[in-house]
Amino acid sequence: MPSSAAEPPKSVTACVLIIGNEILSGRVQDENVAFLAKGLNDAGIRLKEVRVIPDDTDTIVGTVNEVRRAFDYVFTTGGIGPTHDDITAQCIAEAFAVKLILHPEAKRLLEGHYPPGAVNEARMRMAYVPDGAVLLPNPISRAPGFRIGNVYVMAGVPQIMQATFAELSHNLKGGAKVLSRSVSCSLGEGVLARGLGELQARYDDLEIGSYPYFRRADFGVTVVVRGIGRPRLLAATEELKALIAGLGGDPQEGASED
Amino acid sequence: MPSSAAEPPKSVTACVLIIGNEILSGRVQDENVAFLAKGLNDAGIRLKEVRVIPDDTDTIVGTVNEVRRAFDYVFTTGGIGPTHDDITAQCIAEAFAVKLILHPEAKRLLEGHYPPGAVNEARMRMAYVPDGAVLLPNPISRAPGFRIGNVYVMAGVPQIMQATFAELSHNLKGGAKVLSRSVSCSLGEGVLARGLGELQARYDDLEIGSYPYFRRADFGVTVVVRGIGRPRLLAATEELKALIAGLGGDPQEGASED
Repeated sequence: MPSSAAEPPKSVTACVLIIGNEILSGRVQDENVAFLAKGLNDAGIRLKEVRVIPDDTDTIVGTVNEVRRAFDYVFTTGGIGPTHDDITAQCIAEAFAVKLILHPEAKRLLEGHYPPGAVNEARMRMAYVPDGAVLLPNPISRAPGFRIGNVYVMAGVPQIMQATFAELSHNLKGGAKVLSRSVSCSLGEGVLARGLGELQARYDDLEIGSYPYFRRADFGVTVVVRGIGRPRLLAATEELKALIAGLGGDPQEGASED
Repeated sequence: MPSSAAEPPKSVTACVLIIGNEILSGRVQDENVAFLAKGLNDAGIRLKEVRVIPDDTDTIVGTVNEVRRAFDYVFTTGGIGPTHDDITAQCIAEAFAVKLILHPEAKRLLEGHYPPGAVNEARMRMAYVPDGAVLLPNPISRAPGFRIGNVYVMAGVPQIMQATFAELSHNLKGGAKVLSRSVSCSLGEGVLARGLGELQARYDDLEIGSYPYFRRADFGVTVVVRGIGRPRLLAATEELKALIAGLGGDPQEGASED
């Protein structure tokens, strides 16, 4: 259902917190941001900021309290396992000034997942959540994530995070979905810049981004047009293609996101 | 030159700002964080936080002013090209409360790079830097990055950012480099957790992280030990291998970072 430009819809915002020293040390390449960015956009939620922070109590507590007030939704990944460096749950409890409690359903899930007697003290830590939190499903290894207020706390392992997000995303309340079109050409970005700026000025309800690329002997630019109103998006894309052709370029339309 | 545990060296910190809607929309997978994380560690600088923020003036100005006071070094990528959405230079000038000025050397570099007459108004924008900034080299497309105070401003295109960083990194003043060892095994993380916590308690000068992995029918954990004192690092790694073996696991030592 395309929105008209006349009724600006509410923009619903999100912040993602990637909690983990392994991203900051460069040992692991993050995969969660790109997945969540797309998933949130599909739900009509704009990812406005990402922070990658270390496994440090003061940093986690302070950051959670800052961003949960600044954005409609906060999604965290990482730090909810059984080992000493998994401190996210206790930090979230501290941020919300509530106790960490043993959640009966989480305890039951863990005891059903492991062989009898295998839920030792370390594993039972994964059944503790901030008081008032609601469990989030983990179809892979059972130890659940949780939600408290507008903060969704998920595992850092991409497969688990993705499975959890797939289940929770149905309950997110987003606004209008941002659609996009992209057009590439082998013109220099500087050749296109003036016309592109004029196009952006005429379509100030859309967001036009210009991304140069350099490959071996080849270079060019991909222009991405994003917005919520399909007719305006298509009109701007046609004007963009005409602009490129008029400057001697060969516009190639790329993948669209609808 | 290994540091001894007796003289705790100064820890030099950094924050990376990834400026760009394309990462937040999920269209582009960031590559710059992992590269900078490794490059900074090699220079003895600890990457303590990453923020991904949109091409929005208030957000960029506010974030730059927050993080340049909180960290020893700030590195930004993105938003210094010729198009309307390239607003990083003017935002940095605003953050430092200085004017944006035409830098004579940057102008000369651009005019030498493009054919006569091709440096149009849009391209000349790339020669404007905050008053007082020092240029950073761009061996690929010439349009320079710049440094002002403790803030290093680089292009978002990975090849250009990497070439710029390679040249500037010689001048960074880091502390002791963090070394690391990793050991993997097919034990469950929960089996290892108690002993790992005790190991961390005995080696509180090191940072021990536990990272579970799940692959098809296979799962296990990689434990990473990080610290600046090589003898302690090696001793903890040996204890870790013994811990794993004692629990019936098969410790596999992974790549080290020295």
